[in-house]
This record gives sequence, structure tokens and C-alpha cells, in this order.
Amino acid sequence: MPKPIQQFVQFGPIQLPYSQLFILRRHVFATVNLKPVAPGHVLVCSKRPVKRLYDMTEVEAVEFWITVQEVAKVIKYFHNFKTNCHVSIQDGMHAGQTIPSVHCHIIPYQGKDFDILS
Amino acid sequence: MPKPIQQFVQFGPIQLPYSQLFILRRHVFATVNLKPVAPGHVLVCSKRPVKRLYDMTEVEAVEFWITVQEVAKVIKYFHNFKTNCHVSIQDGMHAGQTIPSVHCHIIPYQGKDFDILS
Repeated sequence: MPKPIQQFVQFGPIQLPYSQLFILRRHVFATVNLKPVAPGHVLVCSKRPVKRLYDMTEVEAVEFWITVQEVAKVIKYFHNFKTNCHVSIQDGMHAGQTIPSVHCHIIPYQGKDFDILS
Repeated sequence: MPKPIQQFVQFGPIQLPYSQLFILRRHVFATVNLKPVAPGHVLVCSKRPVKRLYDMTEVEAVEFWITVQEVAKVIKYFHNFKTNCHVSIQDGMHAGQTIPSVHCHIIPYQGKDFDILS
């Protein structure tokens, strides 16, 4: 009997089915945050379960960061060019990392709290 | 008379002399933060004055991110392997960006506030 194809990615202790991913590449995937701090809060994650940024190979890191940049760009179009983003990595548990696998938060801001700046 | 060699980089409205940089590459530089929120708070900055992440070319972005990764690694050695980092970009003024040029904050945490986790 053929081995069934793996239809999920592992993210720390969590198994995320492909249906919850909006990007799936060789070394990274992207998904919405299960506990968003703002609408549109998404995550770009390493497929290989590495705890710290410096554990990533250069090939993994390049794909990871280019994906972060692309997601930040898509958010701009998705929100009619008005959205800024907070791009953040908690690199290690003392920095607040809860899932022990490198991931980057991309959190859109619409500027509603900072209208004085616009 | 020969033109004097530029001995500083421009960072938004600020001119930073080379003596204040600890990394200077083709597309990026790194410096300490003038207003650190924690000891060891440093910045990796784009040399070209681009406001948003998606304004960087892929070549610039790759050098930028690899440098961020390297700095996070050096911080680990510098602080005897005990340090975690918060890696953060305020991408746009609504996200809190004050200098309108892409830069990444790398803020070490020694875990003193989170000893329960260690």
C-alpha cells in the first residue's frame, strides 16, 4: 500500500493542514496567526524546525526573507495601499518566542491610531 | 582639487560617520541605536534611502537579511550564549517608523524578566 502523502506542515507541536497555508515553498510556509493581535496578522515560518535565526542555512534564510518581503508587499495591495506593517521575530524564548521554530510576524497597521502622522 | 571621500552614511536626516558603524557593506550598514531600549540594541540599515521593505531590490534585501542574521549570531557569542533577540522592523510610519529609511532593530534580551522559562 503506498504511503499517504503528507498533507500538513509541522509548526512546533502543531500540525497545520495545507488548507490553512497561503504560501508553501521549499523551505518556508505562510499562514494566518491563530491568535491575531490585529486583522491580517500572518506568519512566515521555517519548514525545518530550527529554533533560532542563526540555525537557518543561507538558502533557507534567503527564501524566508524574500517571502517576508513579498507578504508585506501583498498586504499593501490588499489594504488599498494604506497599510503599514510591523515585521517582528521573537528570536528565542526569552524574547517571547512561544513556538520553538523560527517564524516572523507580519502585523498590518492601518494608521487609525496614528492619524496625526498622515 | 580632488573631491573628498565621503566618510559618512546618510540615515534619514542623520549623517553617521564611519566611526559609528560596526558593519559597512555594499548595500547595508550596522550601528548602535542612539536611543537604545536595552543594552546592545543595534540597527541594521539600508544604505539606499528606501522607505518600505518592498522598495528594496532582491540583492539589497538578501544582503540586508543575511546581515541581520549574522548580527543576531554575534550577539549570541558576545553575551555568552545566553541572549535571545527581538528582531523588528517598523515598516512605514503608521507602524512606528521614525526614520523614513528601512532599518531593522535587533534588541538583546538576557531573559532576566523571564527566568521562569529557563
